[in-house]
Amino acid sequence: MPSLTELQSWQGLQALADVLQRSSVSSLFAQQNQRFDEFSVSAAGVFLDYSKNRVTREVMGQLFEVAIERGLPEAINAMFSGDQINQSEARSVLHTALRSRSKRLVVNGVDVMTGIREQLAKMAQLVDEVRSGEWRGVTGKPIADVVNIGIGGSDLGPRMVAEALADPAASNPGVQFVSNVDGEHLLQTLAGLDPETTLFIITSKSFTTEETLINATSARRWVRDALGSDVSVRSHFVAVSSNVSAAVEFGIDASNVFQMWDWVGGRYSLWSAAGLAIALACGMEVFSELLAGAADLDEHFCQAPMDQNLPVILALVGIWNRNFQDIESLMIAPYDQRLASLPAYLQQADMESNGKSVDSTGKPVGVKTAPIVWGGAGSNIQHSYMQLLHQGNVSVASDFIVSRQPRTGSTYADHHRLLVANCFAQAQALMQGRSQQQAADELIADGVNPDQAEALAAQQQLPGNQPSNMIMVDNLGPRQLGALLALYEQKIFVQGVIWGVNSFDQWGVALGKTLATTILSTMARQRDGQSAPLAAGEDGSTLGLIRRFRG
Amino acid sequence: MPSLTELQSWQGLQALADVLQRSSVSSLFAQQNQRFDEFSVSAAGVFLDYSKNRVTREVMGQLFEVAIERGLPEAINAMFSGDQINQSEARSVLHTALRSRSKRLVVNGVDVMTGIREQLAKMAQLVDEVRSGEWRGVTGKPIADVVNIGIGGSDLGPRMVAEALADPAASNPGVQFVSNVDGEHLLQTLAGLDPETTLFIITSKSFTTEETLINATSARRWVRDALGSDVSVRSHFVAVSSNVSAAVEFGIDASNVFQMWDWVGGRYSLWSAAGLAIALACGMEVFSELLAGAADLDEHFCQAPMDQNLPVILALVGIWNRNFQDIESLMIAPYDQRLASLPAYLQQADMESNGKSVDSTGKPVGVKTAPIVWGGAGSNIQHSYMQLLHQGNVSVASDFIVSRQPRTGSTYADHHRLLVANCFAQAQALMQGRSQQQAADELIADGVNPDQAEALAAQQQLPGNQPSNMIMVDNLGPRQLGALLALYEQKIFVQGVIWGVNSFDQWGVALGKTLATTILSTMARQRDGQSAPLAAGEDGSTLGLIRRFRG
Repeated sequence: MPSLTELQSWQGLQALADVLQRSSVSSLFAQQNQRFDEFSVSAAGVFLDYSKNRVTREVMGQLFEVAIERGLPEAINAMFSGDQINQSEARSVLHTALRSRSKRLVVNGVDVMTGIREQLAKMAQLVDEVRSGEWRGVTGKPIADVVNIGIGGSDLGPRMVAEALADPAASNPGVQFVSNVDGEHLLQTLAGLDPETTLFIITSKSFTTEETLINATSARRWVRDALGSDVSVRSHFVAVSSNVSAAVEFGIDASNVFQMWDWVGGRYSLWSAAGLAIALACGMEVFSELLAGAADLDEHFCQAPMDQNLPVILALVGIWNRNFQDIESLMIAPYDQRLASLPAYLQQADMESNGKSVDSTGKPVGVKTAPIVWGGAGSNIQHSYMQLLHQGNVSVASDFIVSRQPRTGSTYADHHRLLVANCFAQAQALMQGRSQQQAADELIADGVNPDQAEALAAQQQLPGNQPSNMIMVDNLGPRQLGALLALYEQKIFVQGVIWGVNSFDQWGVALGKTLATTILSTMARQRDGQSAPLAAGEDGSTLGLIRRFRG
Repeated sequence: MPSLTELQSWQGLQALADVLQRSSVSSLFAQQNQRFDEFSVSAAGVFLDYSKNRVTREVMGQLFEVAIERGLPEAINAMFSGDQINQSEARSVLHTALRSRSKRLVVNGVDVMTGIREQLAKMAQLVDEVRSGEWRGVTGKPIADVVNIGIGGSDLGPRMVAEALADPAASNPGVQFVSNVDGEHLLQTLAGLDPETTLFIITSKSFTTEETLINATSARRWVRDALGSDVSVRSHFVAVSSNVSAAVEFGIDASNVFQMWDWVGGRYSLWSAAGLAIALACGMEVFSELLAGAADLDEHFCQAPMDQNLPVILALVGIWNRNFQDIESLMIAPYDQRLASLPAYLQQADMESNGKSVDSTGKPVGVKTAPIVWGGAGSNIQHSYMQLLHQGNVSVASDFIVSRQPRTGSTYADHHRLLVANCFAQAQALMQGRSQQQAADELIADGVNPDQAEALAAQQQLPGNQPSNMIMVDNLGPRQLGALLALYEQKIFVQGVIWGVNSFDQWGVALGKTLATTILSTMARQRDGQSAPLAAGEDGSTLGLIRRFRG
């Protein structure tokens, strides 16, 4: 099988990129009136306009060719069928089953849908008990606050979705998230809470995640100190973990441990019981709608032809920007305060999945892989870093995300129009830029004298030609958010297939953990007054820092 | 005067970069035991270890040479003296005066220190009145909550500092921040508040910032609807603005308008009355300590020789990474939950200041300028995007930031040790990486059979050689935070001087505002049923989006 860069289609893309190098996106619009109609697509309640990228019909055609030659249709089928596509960990990848409307999905002789339905029913029961006030703390009071203790995938997804969907006026119980091992995070969260009315969810697949365990242990101490017995732990802690015995040993009732499966990666786990905090904050109906929206998108992904296929198109445009336009970073700009944590969520989803330099056979990929993903909520970003995108000398690709309708209703209708206009205007300005002549003309029209205008105009010209996508949903609720998140998940999957990497492992994070253990023991030796010469594998900087930390 | 790239010292750096290309940082440590001592520096309570960058003594020497040839000492003097170094706006740049311990600073015949002292006294009075309960709402109740309405520099700095320094156990009043024009932001903030006990700070230098004005207007409606009179506005709103008459017209008492000066840019304004929310959340003593810490750093910056000068060194290492190592992005990793919003703050500080492609005379800079700044709080990031930094194929420069002592005290001492060990370990892992052979040896030692180990090791090797800085403060309080923020401000200033850009204007943000106005009127025409053909300057995508928005 030829490597990616040996493919004729891939080489054809390079040739097209060379030809297009001198064409701005604006000039492509001038050449072709119908770009918007041709380069936009809608499915599962999500609309994508990708016409402001530096692509042409030929480019898209060639990208679809690459996808076929890299076996994308077969790869999609393999994932949804439960094949062990996570080869380095010998696991299936079945987060899609968590939201599937299928009745049955047999993997290795087991129908995984049965277990999924059981866990959903169990979630529904807990959610009902807590939200109705039936679940009582050890002193007999109903639960007012839920604290999810988890990190990475056990935090970013649930937190982002709960922030986006919880009704600020009606949220009962309040849901908060503690992830950081820094004691400040737990301390600040507990400062406003009452142990009698607080329920903790400990989310860790292995129940050995260091940060989560130390936070859980400190939270347990807080509960015990206030409520005084081991019984209190049973009334104030539940767990989401595949390690039931460890959770039980911690003091949690076995019946309050929700299952995780080895075929759900942490960064794909919000659809499982790891999303319990979402369901507690918003209700089980909302959680079900979230799953339904993701299922809508999955079905579209499996069925739609490539040139109408949202995740495929979004992925291929990303490949074009990364590999043929040499754009290193992807700015995520939700023009929606509810999605303020979406960039942080997508950082993990994208960079942990495809931040790899070897393919799944161990060979160098040979081309750049995942971009640096970053961003923030608009319109805030216009008053912050957007200056650089408009006037710096770095190419950045952007995804703008906006909801046609606000949740806020008529009281804030003027806010919403202004929000949307600013969103469209940023994308437009990034594409169009402004020439020095235009800037000078505008200054002169504003009454600036021609000499000054000439000098200032040089400071006010904008290169433009920055590519962007515009993603619009009709009314950001659980169903459309579910579809939006599944869109990004599948986009990332498609890119992984094109690059040939395993998007579902994360071996790069192991070394830091090992080194941290070594550093902790060096710190302990130093506390004990032992001299600490440079050990094997240690460097002068790390040792110097440890000494300085000791003080 | 020669351009930057014509300087012999600049060309010398390129030659050094070529020579060093094949030397990893680890190999530099092996060659020179004393790297840590040579490449670390401490001042104003801030310690910087920059030894894990790909620099040598020769590189640093040549960088200092560049700084001298670019007139850095003169530029520092010009800024602190109040010269109009913001040439395109014909303004001085005097945020340093806000924290200066000087008795007098005469600029254009006016002693600016007098006005600064007046405003500080006025802030102290308001803070005292509100925190003591003397300030009463219109119904006679003391203030329980403060809401700062502002965007960009009127939001990011005050919010970040208030989050970092407010004592979660004692914060009185609670302080919240509304910036986004999205009505959700105000709605969600107001959901938990009582108009009778809420005080709004409207922060806008011009009092015309669109987002801020619309949020202020909606907040005023919320107050009036509940409390029923214009008197209520006077008791529940103060302003920070240089446009007193507009604030008065809004309904704010002139005596409750705090001054802004044209020589303080928004992104440098937290040291002014724009930091009122900080002082209300933490007390005036804390705010004074913050200023004192920044003054410590400023004094060091003005006095220390270059090779001991923290901001100069941090800036020059950044120049080396950006221009000679071709590293496009800078990851900010505070291992401190209190600094979770620091990356967002530094995005504006750096990218809005130096995201320019022309120099202050209007000529192309000729080299890359500000990096993409992004990041997040550790240890969270290890469970998210750090995979890419360890195992992707992108060079990223990182600043790790950590406090030796926790604020949390002994209850969380084990958390803090683990936090610091993980911080050091990430930086170490980024530098050292892991060879395929090491990975295979470890797998075999763990009992994996040699064939499997060989295959897996390819997936587990890490390239390493990612540069990073480690910034450590003794105990993150207001004084050390002030010094830390001033360090970054001055670093950005130094880089601006080297690149020759005006770090204090932001012309790139204007076009988006203009286009948003046009889009709003197109939307309005469409609502009125008028047909909307492509107008001059409009593109098919923007028009298509507007039509789709209308639905």
